[in-house]
Amino acid sequence: MIAGFYPAARQPLLIVISGASGAGKDSVLQRMKDRGLPFHFVVTATTRKPRPGEKDGRDYFFVSHERFAAMIEKGELLEHAIVYSDYKGIPRQQVRQALDSGQDVVMRIDVQGAETIRALCPEALLIFLVPASEDEMVRRLKARKTETPQDLQLRIETARQELQRMHVFDYYVVNADAQLDAAVDLIEAIIEAEHHRIHPRRVSL
Amino acid sequence: MIAGFYPAARQPLLIVISGASGAGKDSVLQRMKDRGLPFHFVVTATTRKPRPGEKDGRDYFFVSHERFAAMIEKGELLEHAIVYSDYKGIPRQQVRQALDSGQDVVMRIDVQGAETIRALCPEALLIFLVPASEDEMVRRLKARKTETPQDLQLRIETARQELQRMHVFDYYVVNADAQLDAAVDLIEAIIEAEHHRIHPRRVSL
Repeated sequence: MIAGFYPAARQPLLIVISGASGAGKDSVLQRMKDRGLPFHFVVTATTRKPRPGEKDGRDYFFVSHERFAAMIEKGELLEHAIVYSDYKGIPRQQVRQALDSGQDVVMRIDVQGAETIRALCPEALLIFLVPASEDEMVRRLKARKTETPQDLQLRIETARQELQRMHVFDYYVVNADAQLDAAVDLIEAIIEAEHHRIHPRRVSL
Repeated sequence: MIAGFYPAARQPLLIVISGASGAGKDSVLQRMKDRGLPFHFVVTATTRKPRPGEKDGRDYFFVSHERFAAMIEKGELLEHAIVYSDYKGIPRQQVRQALDSGQDVVMRIDVQGAETIRALCPEALLIFLVPASEDEMVRRLKARKTETPQDLQLRIETARQELQRMHVFDYYVVNADAQLDAAVDLIEAIIEAEHHRIHPRRVSL
């Protein structure tokens, strides 16, 4: 490298993978992990009980409601939300440490949480997953649980509203059925491109 | 696609491939053409004589000094420069037509020309090629012509000054010897990422 001419050393990115319900956030995250990409994937704290096969510290940090309340109280969470009567939150210290070590940090988060991260860290990299069509979105929402038609209608309405928040994000990635790898390829391309900006994002939390 | 939620139809990009002397602009452009990437590669107008194998309208538009002077006079060139006592320039109409047809336009241009394009079109996508090391840069400059040591020294100084204009650009791409494909892969990734910005560049000329 030519001294003095390059941007400062590679800056770690704070990467938020979000998108409306039915956009396939979990599948995308799982594929990114399966590929062994060199990111720190945030481990979320949650009050819900572990499901079979889930491991504390790897899949989630499983904590009591009391502990979670204390984490909120002490400002230990960047962001938190109630999901089906359980709490989920992003531990601030974990994200800071990974960034300090120079690693890109990836978090999967809902649209409202992504907006919170944007407010805390304007230079976070926000990627918005979108389904390829409304049909596909509805099909995914239906597949998720056995619910009443009213529940499903509510989920669809919520997803539509979330889609309207897209303007808060930096990039969109279409996650079509059976094209998961294309979506992950594009996410990798976006991250690689962002690492070659002459004026890199400066992340602080 | 979900009507109303996506950014407007894919916006064509005006892509400038530039970089200091010795950064390997020509090799990168040639490799992009060889790959058959779906871009409009700008055909430059020049007053120099065709070399063996060069074809008018494909490699360059070969024009007389009189015609070139008229093109400048009539504002038909986006940008022009004198290179070794010959003129080179970018025909404005050609770029406009390609953009109007929705094609991404790629032009290879020196650093000063890239700054002119930035001034004309602030939302142009400016990519700066850099050699992997000063040694490599000097080796490429030496390989180019049989010149006096004074000429070479002048070229090196110019290249150093050009490197200092990097801050005007959007992205940098290291073009290392024997890693041309990696450089072109990264350029493709940058372009693909840019096409997925939620707030796309709006190019007008």
